[in-house]
Amino acid sequence: MPSNFVLPHRGWLFDLDGTVYRGESLIPGAADVIAALRAAGRRVAFLSNKPIHTRADYARKLTRLGIPTPDADVVNSSLVLARHLARLDAGAPVFVIGEPPLIGELRAHGFEVRGDHRVRWVVIAFDRTFDYAKLNTALQAVRQGARLIATNPDRTCPTEDGEIPDCAGMTAAVEAVTGRAVEVVVGKPSPIILEIALEQLGVPASECVIVGDRLETDIVMGKRLGLATVLVLTGITTASDARIAETAPDLVVSSIRDLLR
Amino acid sequence: MPSNFVLPHRGWLFDLDGTVYRGESLIPGAADVIAALRAAGRRVAFLSNKPIHTRADYARKLTRLGIPTPDADVVNSSLVLARHLARLDAGAPVFVIGEPPLIGELRAHGFEVRGDHRVRWVVIAFDRTFDYAKLNTALQAVRQGARLIATNPDRTCPTEDGEIPDCAGMTAAVEAVTGRAVEVVVGKPSPIILEIALEQLGVPASECVIVGDRLETDIVMGKRLGLATVLVLTGITTASDARIAETAPDLVVSSIRDLLR
Repeated sequence: MPSNFVLPHRGWLFDLDGTVYRGESLIPGAADVIAALRAAGRRVAFLSNKPIHTRADYARKLTRLGIPTPDADVVNSSLVLARHLARLDAGAPVFVIGEPPLIGELRAHGFEVRGDHRVRWVVIAFDRTFDYAKLNTALQAVRQGARLIATNPDRTCPTEDGEIPDCAGMTAAVEAVTGRAVEVVVGKPSPIILEIALEQLGVPASECVIVGDRLETDIVMGKRLGLATVLVLTGITTASDARIAETAPDLVVSSIRDLLR
Repeated sequence: MPSNFVLPHRGWLFDLDGTVYRGESLIPGAADVIAALRAAGRRVAFLSNKPIHTRADYARKLTRLGIPTPDADVVNSSLVLARHLARLDAGAPVFVIGEPPLIGELRAHGFEVRGDHRVRWVVIAFDRTFDYAKLNTALQAVRQGARLIATNPDRTCPTEDGEIPDCAGMTAAVEAVTGRAVEVVVGKPSPIILEIALEQLGVPASECVIVGDRLETDIVMGKRLGLATVLVLTGITTASDARIAETAPDLVVSSIRDLLR
């Protein structure tokens, strides 16, 4: 029986903003494609670099927009950071430059989240409550030997009101005052987020597709780990972008809708 | 008549912390040397990279410690920034990442200090009230064409309780989220602070001495502008520091006290 889909793979990873929805609007066809993949027994998960919402927030948003989704099908940078740090130093005391969803994820993974500098790790994330006191605590922690890990490398985050500062601002401030570079950034384009998403799907890389709108993150990262890559043109990348040929996704489609024949 | 001083120069610039005092204690002999220089008709001024105190704060501290000093004899990075920016763009609307002494200096120089992003310059300084909202305003300002200027390049500032984050943290955060480099940093080792100090003294560089405890700022900057340079060993630099020979100050003395024969 021939596949109804443009690619025959068992596992499908989808970027969210620009791929499945834009802001509060579903990209036309997205609900049908996801429903068809699931009906055909394909494994589906959604990826996000943002640590300021919980996985449940994303699941609720997708469900509200017409794609019923359990929390477990969402992989965001908070989850990935907590899982990766659990491999490096399970249960460690940590100081967090970040918002409650990240703090909750770390606590759920058994970390001791502290308000002072007596920690083994400083976790740096997109944090709209970042301030000088947190920067100072990070400095004191590093001076006492704490290590640095961050959720995502993005400079800014698009919102309905325009771009706002993202994790790169917090990371740069901490690196500048401590004189230390962050050791690990787990979010895209790091292979770490993809490895953890593949674990979540339970499907090996060679049987997976990643679908996204960004060449330098979704596509580059997918190719590096041996997934099939599909670029959609509903987000940041336009059909005339000269870098498409250079990055060479396996497939370029105008929209998620075109994944279904 | 032979000079009572180790150098015959007319103008004398002194770094403060580590040179004239350490924290709240005057370096022994400092009051006598300054009094003798003044009595001999030499022009004296004091330099600081810190923008978080007013010139009057420094003058009061020196006076309290036994060196009676008028505000006008203090040149700090707030004053230098305000004077330099007045040359570049007098009266411009500015957004300030900084504390009240800097805001006061900018207002006193005729700048329109605004709380929003509708400005021509974002002024970045050591700011213990730095937060995400200020970082976001800086980003929005730059996106609308604002330029970036900073008071000082220091990573950390020594205090009685240890090092705390200095201007480099705020600068790095703004540079990371905007993708723009700061155009001008006026504090040491920039020649700008020294030019403005020389204007303040009314003495040309060739007839001036700079006395300080840091090779990479006080001495390097002084040599670059053609001042005589004196390194004191009461601060950050020790007698065994191999970089002394490399940087080659005109004179190395154990303390400010040794400037008087």
